[in-house]
Amino acid sequence: MGFHGTLRPGLIQLRVLDLDKTLDFYKNILGLDEVGRTNDGRVMLKAYDEFDHHSVVLRKTNEAGLDFVAFKVDSPEKLEDLKQKTEKFGYKVSEASDDQPGFGKRYVYTICTGHQFQIYYDVELAKKTPQIKNPDIWTEPPRGMRATRLDHFLLFGPGIAEAERYCKEVFDMYVPEVCNTPDGKRLAAWITSSNKPHDLAFVEYPKPGKLHHVGFYLQTWEDVLNAADHIAINKLKLDIGPTRHAITRGLSIYFWEPSGNRIETYCAGYTAYPDNPQRVWDADQLGKGLFYFSGEVIPSFLEVVS
Amino acid sequence: MGFHGTLRPGLIQLRVLDLDKTLDFYKNILGLDEVGRTNDGRVMLKAYDEFDHHSVVLRKTNEAGLDFVAFKVDSPEKLEDLKQKTEKFGYKVSEASDDQPGFGKRYVYTICTGHQFQIYYDVELAKKTPQIKNPDIWTEPPRGMRATRLDHFLLFGPGIAEAERYCKEVFDMYVPEVCNTPDGKRLAAWITSSNKPHDLAFVEYPKPGKLHHVGFYLQTWEDVLNAADHIAINKLKLDIGPTRHAITRGLSIYFWEPSGNRIETYCAGYTAYPDNPQRVWDADQLGKGLFYFSGEVIPSFLEVVS
Amino acid sequence: MGFHGTLRPGLIQLRVLDLDKTLDFYKNILGLDEVGRTNDGRVMLKAYDEFDHHSVVLRKTNEAGLDFVAFKVDSPEKLEDLKQKTEKFGYKVSEASDDQPGFGKRYVYTICTGHQFQIYYDVELAKKTPQIKNPDIWTEPPRGMRATRLDHFLLFGPGIAEAERYCKEVFDMYVPEVCNTPDGKRLAAWITSSNKPHDLAFVEYPKPGKLHHVGFYLQTWEDVLNAADHIAINKLKLDIGPTRHAITRGLSIYFWEPSGNRIETYCAGYTAYPDNPQRVWDADQLGKGLFYFSGEVIPSFLEVVS
Amino acid sequence: MGFHGTLRPGLIQLRVLDLDKTLDFYKNILGLDEVGRTNDGRVMLKAYDEFDHHSVVLRKTNEAGLDFVAFKVDSPEKLEDLKQKTEKFGYKVSEASDDQPGFGKRYVYTICTGHQFQIYYDVELAKKTPQIKNPDIWTEPPRGMRATRLDHFLLFGPGIAEAERYCKEVFDMYVPEVCNTPDGKRLAAWITSSNKPHDLAFVEYPKPGKLHHVGFYLQTWEDVLNAADHIAINKLKLDIGPTRHAITRGLSIYFWEPSGNRIETYCAGYTAYPDNPQRVWDADQLGKGLFYFSGEVIPSFLEVVS
Repeated sequence: MGFHGTLRPGLIQLRVLDLDKTLDFYKNILGLDEVGRTNDGRVMLKAYDEFDHHSVVLRKTNEAGLDFVAFKVDSPEKLEDLKQKTEKFGYKVSEASDDQPGFGKRYVYTICTGHQFQIYYDVELAKKTPQIKNPDIWTEPPRGMRATRLDHFLLFGPGIAEAERYCKEVFDMYVPEVCNTPDGKRLAAWITSSNKPHDLAFVEYPKPGKLHHVGFYLQTWEDVLNAADHIAINKLKLDIGPTRHAITRGLSIYFWEPSGNRIETYCAGYTAYPDNPQRVWDADQLGKGLFYFSGEVIPSFLEVVS
Repeated sequence: MGFHGTLRPGLIQLRVLDLDKTLDFYKNILGLDEVGRTNDGRVMLKAYDEFDHHSVVLRKTNEAGLDFVAFKVDSPEKLEDLKQKTEKFGYKVSEASDDQPGFGKRYVYTICTGHQFQIYYDVELAKKTPQIKNPDIWTEPPRGMRATRLDHFLLFGPGIAEAERYCKEVFDMYVPEVCNTPDGKRLAAWITSSNKPHDLAFVEYPKPGKLHHVGFYLQTWEDVLNAADHIAINKLKLDIGPTRHAITRGLSIYFWEPSGNRIETYCAGYTAYPDNPQRVWDADQLGKGLFYFSGEVIPSFLEVVS
Repeated sequence: MGFHGTLRPGLIQLRVLDLDKTLDFYKNILGLDEVGRTNDGRVMLKAYDEFDHHSVVLRKTNEAGLDFVAFKVDSPEKLEDLKQKTEKFGYKVSEASDDQPGFGKRYVYTICTGHQFQIYYDVELAKKTPQIKNPDIWTEPPRGMRATRLDHFLLFGPGIAEAERYCKEVFDMYVPEVCNTPDGKRLAAWITSSNKPHDLAFVEYPKPGKLHHVGFYLQTWEDVLNAADHIAINKLKLDIGPTRHAITRGLSIYFWEPSGNRIETYCAGYTAYPDNPQRVWDADQLGKGLFYFSGEVIPSFLEVVS
Repeated sequence: MGFHGTLRPGLIQLRVLDLDKTLDFYKNILGLDEVGRTNDGRVMLKAYDEFDHHSVVLRKTNEAGLDFVAFKVDSPEKLEDLKQKTEKFGYKVSEASDDQPGFGKRYVYTICTGHQFQIYYDVELAKKTPQIKNPDIWTEPPRGMRATRLDHFLLFGPGIAEAERYCKEVFDMYVPEVCNTPDGKRLAAWITSSNKPHDLAFVEYPKPGKLHHVGFYLQTWEDVLNAADHIAINKLKLDIGPTRHAITRGLSIYFWEPSGNRIETYCAGYTAYPDNPQRVWDADQLGKGLFYFSGEVIPSFLEVVS
């Protein structure tokens, strides 16, 4: 029932520098709830409108960035199927062995761009989920930036044409938008398994395994404004926004959390369908595609990753 | 690539009384574009943000209501597959023979609730679609209520438990929310093939084939306000709203177009996933579920259909 | 510097039944801050965006309603001037003797409609005001319904034509909108001292001294939605809304606080100017004027007062 | 009745280069209505929500910028009173002799900053005003950026301390916010006659008579987004935004119209009162004050004027 391949990106583990200060951001400014801690001190968090055990893990270390992203599938059979297809595609798959409370079997592998992917089916419901019996729309007022859920990520690395092919062939995703260089090579791709205009995106980049940003979903343009006010009051470092992407049509603001991982708080975007024609961007129009109002790419956006 | 069964409800044909006045509503107030007319004088329309040839057809006759709803699938093989599954489910399927410009083969059948369903794969792109090459977000400013696309319908008829089962078993849809009577019978079901909280919904009702409303998608709560202002200025008959449904969490306003078909202009709603727990409503909480702020069902909402 | 007569309605004292439950509403749902208590146990409150000591007082007694409304003027000379003009107009003025911490001299009198008015100049700044040195837009996130300030009140009582004349002649206010009966008598008047479309309003009513509602200002239509969500979740009794008034063009929701005083949370409205033509409503169009989308007055709105 | 001194800035005359192209912007993108032309070919415009004959005049010449700004007062007596006070203040006043259809007597003079001011009382109502008898909120849907009215201007020139004193002493305005240099000199002042946080503002600048921007009022943050979309689609040159000013708390976007005059489309802002404490900015915090989210002034903002 539902989607062909993966359901969605459901879990991300981030490396952070100052755990207390960064956790304070994710909890009290972004508005996530702390779910608990792993035996080795990683912090599990989730957004108020998510059902699963947790969706974000913070691991304290000496370099910011991404440990892994994990995609949920809708059956144990699908999990095994994707494992086999991944191996056939050419990636070496093993079973994840780190402590991830609430989660069952996870397969782990590294794709061509240097990013670690995981896939899983089995995860417990969180203790604090949205109501399901005659439900209210929330049980306590959303806090801070009012992030509703983990939405997507943008990954920078080499060989994204292969990564895109992987997402299509193995994850059965589709690609609502792409950006090509003048010689016809893929510069960027926005990829999704559902109606969301992207579950993840790739930009071609020489260094492997880089994280450009993690996107959290807000409900409205007014919530983007509220996020911006929180950025100002908490003296977070703004990258750009509030603005609109012509790509995805999302409304967005980018900034860095205290450890230097770029965060996007994002809303809107069109309703994507796999039968709609793919939108295609020329590299020299990427400024318009990314920052619709100025039409110009700011240098930090293409240069700073974690 | 994409969704298991149907992609979405992609076409609806409505019966209208005063074609000129009703067409004026759909074009100049709701904001659809007229695509053309069939040989027998039916009017084809589409929303500015849709790609396919047309999504709404108005047929002049002496009683308002619904001729049929048609669902798009993503391959010719899927079309034949759904045809066979539908026949196996017990509905007699034939090929549609009416003039529907831009559309290829369509299968047609009547489900237990008395509603005519169609399924199709083949449809041309409209001449006036959203841009796909370095696209702007629109090419001319959205008009009137700024409806972006056909979103869903609510159908009233007998035997909805079977209809729900049909949508799950044949269309491979899932059911994010249901409402049950005290004796455990289905009173209503909200059903979807994607992330939208509903593509269609059913309410148990003694008379077959009734249309409660057609829902068009707006971008924001502010656009719901704009729709309300247009209702007031054009002296359309309001049913209820602006309000929120707790069911789907949608923000909505209901009113009647000049022929007496109820229209919903709708936005927001949660991001649905098939692995999330089903939300369950008790019949005595339906007031809260439908009209969250007052908690009370207005009589017209359950009594007036076309 | 500034306005001719009164600056604004700056203080209101309400009678409440269940002080704890009602206070919980004003603090935790409406979002006011408790400033302190008077010697006789009345509770002082203010909105986060107000500068003066307090703007709302709750007095526990056995009947809900309005004790008084008080208007601020911009100089001691103006205060004495208005006192004299009020006496000349025909109302007996005395000095207020109740304990009102933070406030200096207040004159008190009852106007023809049976409402107690007060005027004052001298009031201390609150301890917790908006910042004024390189200010942020707030110091802690607005809470609950996020009421920014006391905005206006609607008073029901007999002889409103005289009350309107009083506001114009003594308070030097103007009257952006009126509603007249077919025989040309004043049914309602919206009156202001500034750019706000109303600081107060009157509706002709046989019983004296009645309060229809107190209006608190919200920032946006989205905040009206947020207020509505809080009404639903906290099971407050809704009167009507979210809706628009054609009169003032305000966006609004009405409900009752736990003691039975009607509250309006309100935003938008046009920018009023005294040189703009007065808007005039016929009594039979009052439905459109009050509830623009349905065009119909709900009975409770004209019948229930406190 | 109403305000002490001036009512508001009611008329502005701008110099433009390419009249046709610039007029197309003001009419079809900003959304003003063309009222007519003067004998010498200047074009008169007004916003849909304004009552007076016109509020914007475009004069074709070879340099962009400001011809004059004109303030309305509420009586002929006030006009003569302000004329005398202006002369006493030290500015030479004459009667305006240019063709300004719909307007009666206007006094004209140049203030210390090199800007031409005018004052007037007598102006006809426009033919196409907002309705006043059982009014709808508009008679035709607002167009393009949906500017509702002329709001304010920011003037750059030398000697702004005197200009501020003029506005206080003669126009009886007040000054909700100021920005001072470390040596205590005025760098900028925001000045108003009403509840709006500014009717005009000054920034100290060596060259006289310069226009930084003209501000038009939009209804909401969503309309700021709509304005931004129009900027993108019409390839207007963006300066900055959408953003928030901490000063005034306005939500804003700045861009240049085709002749090079900077336009602000603006909404929100606090409700100003003359008795509220003045907000004071240090020059080194001006970045935060102007562009709250980044906290940094972009160079063009302080350098480019017309």
